[in-house]
Amino acid sequence: MPSVKRFACMVLSLALCIASGAEATADPLPSWNEGPAKQAIIAFVAETTSPASPKFVPPEARIATFDQDGTTWVSHPMYTQVVYCLERVPAVVARKPELRKVEPFKTVLSGSREAIAKLSTKDLLKILAVTLSGTTVEEFEAEVEKWLSTAKHPRWDRPYTELTYQPMLEVMSYLRANGYKTYIVTGGGQDFVRAYAERVYGIPPEQVVGSAGATKYGTDKRGKPILTKEPKLLLNDNDAGKPEGIHLVIGRRPVIAFGNSTGDREMLEYTTAGAGARLGLLVLHDDATREYAYGPAAGLPDTKVGAFTRDLYDEAKRNGWVIISMKNAWRRIFAFE
Amino acid sequence: MPSVKRFACMVLSLALCIASGAEATADPLPSWNEGPAKQAIIAFVAETTSPASPKFVPPEARIATFDQDGTTWVSHPMYTQVVYCLERVPAVVARKPELRKVEPFKTVLSGSREAIAKLSTKDLLKILAVTLSGTTVEEFEAEVEKWLSTAKHPRWDRPYTELTYQPMLEVMSYLRANGYKTYIVTGGGQDFVRAYAERVYGIPPEQVVGSAGATKYGTDKRGKPILTKEPKLLLNDNDAGKPEGIHLVIGRRPVIAFGNSTGDREMLEYTTAGAGARLGLLVLHDDATREYAYGPAAGLPDTKVGAFTRDLYDEAKRNGWVIISMKNAWRRIFAFE
Repeated sequence: MPSVKRFACMVLSLALCIASGAEATADPLPSWNEGPAKQAIIAFVAETTSPASPKFVPPEARIATFDQDGTTWVSHPMYTQVVYCLERVPAVVARKPELRKVEPFKTVLSGSREAIAKLSTKDLLKILAVTLSGTTVEEFEAEVEKWLSTAKHPRWDRPYTELTYQPMLEVMSYLRANGYKTYIVTGGGQDFVRAYAERVYGIPPEQVVGSAGATKYGTDKRGKPILTKEPKLLLNDNDAGKPEGIHLVIGRRPVIAFGNSTGDREMLEYTTAGAGARLGLLVLHDDATREYAYGPAAGLPDTKVGAFTRDLYDEAKRNGWVIISMKNAWRRIFAFE
Repeated sequence: MPSVKRFACMVLSLALCIASGAEATADPLPSWNEGPAKQAIIAFVAETTSPASPKFVPPEARIATFDQDGTTWVSHPMYTQVVYCLERVPAVVARKPELRKVEPFKTVLSGSREAIAKLSTKDLLKILAVTLSGTTVEEFEAEVEKWLSTAKHPRWDRPYTELTYQPMLEVMSYLRANGYKTYIVTGGGQDFVRAYAERVYGIPPEQVVGSAGATKYGTDKRGKPILTKEPKLLLNDNDAGKPEGIHLVIGRRPVIAFGNSTGDREMLEYTTAGAGARLGLLVLHDDATREYAYGPAAGLPDTKVGAFTRDLYDEAKRNGWVIISMKNAWRRIFAFE
């Protein structure tokens, strides 16, 4: 048998070699326009993966982190996870009727878009705490996948998971093909993103770092061990929480980090302050026609969601972070275009 | 150039095929005696990796977790990390002289082994909090490696990292060769174990789950971004904390879990309660000659360190967990033997 196995191994290897030979000539980032952003990414990957290069990074240290909302998929007009939580309120109230007449749940149940849009951050956090807890981790995962299979973005009338940026999916594949381990590092819920990260980004659950609630180990009615999601925040994976979360879950400083807002500032600072080759990149939303435009470079005021301030822009310039102008850098934004 | 690359690829592939053919006939666990434990491990790996098997586990779900103290290295007469913390006290007191006259630091500085052995768990936690915080994560890593390079176990007069169990190192390699991702899931400090896990176990930092303190993002005197270790526990990775820590960092239920004490009970329960093929194993310390003997099967009382109670033994039998008798299952315990 070993000889049969060995023969099969050889055939497979030859096929892979031929495939890899063909790949070498293909453009790894076809949805990107030629320009400084694409050039910076390709040059950095070449430098850090050529053993002869002074900027070579050994394979085990090749960590690339991606913020999610506004960096790998659309975050306007509202974070997808907030939409999920608002839409979960009726189901939670059915389980906990005492919430029906209590704010902010009363407002959410009223269905008034105007009133809901006015909810404070504190109110939203109350809604998140209640809708993201009280189930087992498996039940939660199933709920998220079920919701994603029917919910649609109001502007494109498509599932949220189709609103991922094709150029960023290509960067992820390209980095993985070059020995980089790709991580999502999101201010969103770790368990929420884990539910679809493998299917949507090719990123397994153990490579998703996000805001994380505690879980509680116990047994169900039949004595089966379960983990229940608790309404207690362990890690707020925004701002300074991003490098802290990266240390907690990954334990290495990233080599490449992608972000798009002030919430990613500290992740990019921490990443690019490391010794040796490092790369920080920020997606700039300056394409109102194909997606959205906000922030200083678009000559528009900052938004509450995904703020790209003048201050962040200046810091990016100072630190040599690459600005990815959606308008100029991306030939195609979505796979369905 | 592609054709040269392709040729190099073919040569390398053929070499690998020949090597893999040779490997197939070698014993993957040479330090194990033939017997039920070795048999259970080999049968489980065969079943879960053969695509035709009803117990097949897809590669991405192949997660194996290992407790450390008493499971992959010696934990007697004291946890290695506790020894480290006690020996760090003088350096910490030099930085914080106000601790010199305060208990439990005063007792540690006295050097009285008898008095130190009597310190309560609460006292030890105070010592851990102070000695495992106040430095950057990089400084801490360097300190641990420096200490490990000189510290020696009193019984064997060898570095602690040589007191890893050779049979367990073989199991780790064997599992990895079969597509399993190996994780340390330790009650010990996550950052402590990360400092040497890659070198000692071949396990990268991102695959070490342990008791974890918070870190704080900030800048040093020259404005360089740093993460400082804080004296605040985020995750107590013992008992129920093990499945909770596994969910936080890995986000998947393990397929295989190795432990040795009541602190691993919940990890084994959680692991083996999952659907499909699962395997739980407990190392039983019943070899006073070559290592230590304690716990019910050895006819000895339980110890505070790494307790293997009668209750745990009964639960193991009930759940079909494999008992690894060090005396009977292991031909060789240490690589230096």
